[in-house]
Amino acid sequence: MSAPQPSKLAFVPFVSVENMMRLVNRIGVSTVLTELASYIEEDFGRWELFDKTPRVASHSAEGVIELMPTSDGIMYGFKYVNGHPKNMANGLQTVTALGLMSHVDNGYPALLTEMTLLTALRTAATSAMVAKHLAPTHSHTMAMIGNGAQSEFQALAMAALCGIKTLRLYDIDAAATNKLIQNLSGHGLELVACSSAQEAVEGAQIITTCTADKQLATILTDNMVGSGVHINAIGGDCPGKTELHHDILYRSDVFVEFEPQTRIEGEIQQVPADFPVSEMWKVINGESKGRTHDGQITLFDGVGFAIEDFSALRYIRDKIHNTAFYQELDMLADPDDPRDLFGMLQRARGDEK
Amino acid sequence: MSAPQPSKLAFVPFVSVENMMRLVNRIGVSTVLTELASYIEEDFGRWELFDKTPRVASHSAEGVIELMPTSDGIMYGFKYVNGHPKNMANGLQTVTALGLMSHVDNGYPALLTEMTLLTALRTAATSAMVAKHLAPTHSHTMAMIGNGAQSEFQALAMAALCGIKTLRLYDIDAAATNKLIQNLSGHGLELVACSSAQEAVEGAQIITTCTADKQLATILTDNMVGSGVHINAIGGDCPGKTELHHDILYRSDVFVEFEPQTRIEGEIQQVPADFPVSEMWKVINGESKGRTHDGQITLFDGVGFAIEDFSALRYIRDKIHNTAFYQELDMLADPDDPRDLFGMLQRARGDEK
Repeated sequence: MSAPQPSKLAFVPFVSVENMMRLVNRIGVSTVLTELASYIEEDFGRWELFDKTPRVASHSAEGVIELMPTSDGIMYGFKYVNGHPKNMANGLQTVTALGLMSHVDNGYPALLTEMTLLTALRTAATSAMVAKHLAPTHSHTMAMIGNGAQSEFQALAMAALCGIKTLRLYDIDAAATNKLIQNLSGHGLELVACSSAQEAVEGAQIITTCTADKQLATILTDNMVGSGVHINAIGGDCPGKTELHHDILYRSDVFVEFEPQTRIEGEIQQVPADFPVSEMWKVINGESKGRTHDGQITLFDGVGFAIEDFSALRYIRDKIHNTAFYQELDMLADPDDPRDLFGMLQRARGDEK
Repeated sequence: MSAPQPSKLAFVPFVSVENMMRLVNRIGVSTVLTELASYIEEDFGRWELFDKTPRVASHSAEGVIELMPTSDGIMYGFKYVNGHPKNMANGLQTVTALGLMSHVDNGYPALLTEMTLLTALRTAATSAMVAKHLAPTHSHTMAMIGNGAQSEFQALAMAALCGIKTLRLYDIDAAATNKLIQNLSGHGLELVACSSAQEAVEGAQIITTCTADKQLATILTDNMVGSGVHINAIGGDCPGKTELHHDILYRSDVFVEFEPQTRIEGEIQQVPADFPVSEMWKVINGESKGRTHDGQITLFDGVGFAIEDFSALRYIRDKIHNTAFYQELDMLADPDDPRDLFGMLQRARGDEK
């Protein structure tokens, strides 16, 4: 006796790393960043609909493993993500991630996907979407301090959404800068390697800090930041990990994703709990002010929020429809009679005999 | 130019429903239940090592979606599980689940697996492991009230671990009882269909209640429970969902997995917060008393805890080693240079041109 085939309900579409790369390359990475930014902006615009459970973190001496769930009432999504700064020295990714999206009304998963690449894309798309709202108009030059795995995505997103044409690059490891220059040659950007962070910020309207030490660092000091810039600070994203001297915060208007989380994980962990910040969704919906004058320093204290992952899952789910960029995983036990899980198991013995 | 193949680190072993059924049938379901019970008992024995984060629940009108993480400091595991009582009416499983286990020291996943079947197995193994410690010696007859998807697993686990030979069966739907009898014929058990819960408990040393309504129900009333029995109450497992009349609780010694969770989800949500209970890990380690005399009513108020899922993930990881019962999923972006995620994406374009 042969076992019955699993029903259609048993399968969950899965996007592997290989398929994610194919999908992104087929659409084009700049187009993906632009489209993703509009999905994120749309979800920020309906912010109040979302269940904003804090992420659930499991800390160890070596790093952290987190689950980041959220829901808009129709779909539920979560991301599994780790952060292990020492991984790089062992030839491993500092951050790896995977995500799941499912139907709120029956709990059945609708998508499982790699999210290491997708997180890099959504992080850059978020930064650029925020900068589109906050950076000085006619921005053309960005300083990029930290030229690691996230840097090229930031550069292309800022180029696509904010009109950045020149990148001034600095990393404590010149090999990282060389890698960035090699990767982005032919993308229509002027790439300038600088010998210090100080030199990199010269003439930049946008300053992106994207370094990875799990410690209090001072990538930018107060004297390096002139008036009329937008700072995109995305490397500080967990307790004890910051990049900016706190004096900069006092000269800036600070914008965050979700205030309770950023108080714990962001640059603002350096300042008192009543230090004023604005949530970006309010800026997008016109409830809070963004940039009000040319001399203002705007600072996006980005830590990454579950709604951005939700937007990314939603985007991939829409994009794989009617393509070959996914496979079906037999992941859900789905007996003909839902009460007959044991019978299904028993009937499968036909296969093994 | 063709893209390089993903490295070995990019792959995560995945156990599909089909492979889980093959693995369980190859080992034999009773053996799996017995071995799983010993893994769970071992992990209960080292209870204090575990990170006991509460589960993260997302409730909706139709049901709940939960993430249940835990860690023993070496491995991290979590389960995604939904509970949607109305699913059955639509031909769907009430509960579906999947699980992931990863390395604490680098965050890389080591196993992804279906957990619908595995949850049914671990729930039954937990009940039987607990009953082995608490039920009257020489128990031979179990009343099984509720003959749904979990019932056969409970029956076989209690037979394998506690010597149960006779099952007295009751379900409000006689079709469920007939399904159970058909599934378990040939397993060496005496199967007695009863016309009421009252009739089912006659002569039973173990009473298992395993019904699925998401509401306050009274499957067992006080007059139905004589002295000297062990009640295995596993159907009440979320706020507002209970199965026992509270008078029974006052005549019983109550045992739980993790008190803070059971106060919210278990039968004891019906009694005051200072109602005394014992955690099972203390009974296993000899720190709390289990059954002390023949006339005592012991009650396991089982709701399911993350450590049981951890044990189950650990068991499957050990068992698939050197078998064909899994496939490798290309789930982790793993560039040769960890900082060169973008370069990996760009080089993959060779495939698409």
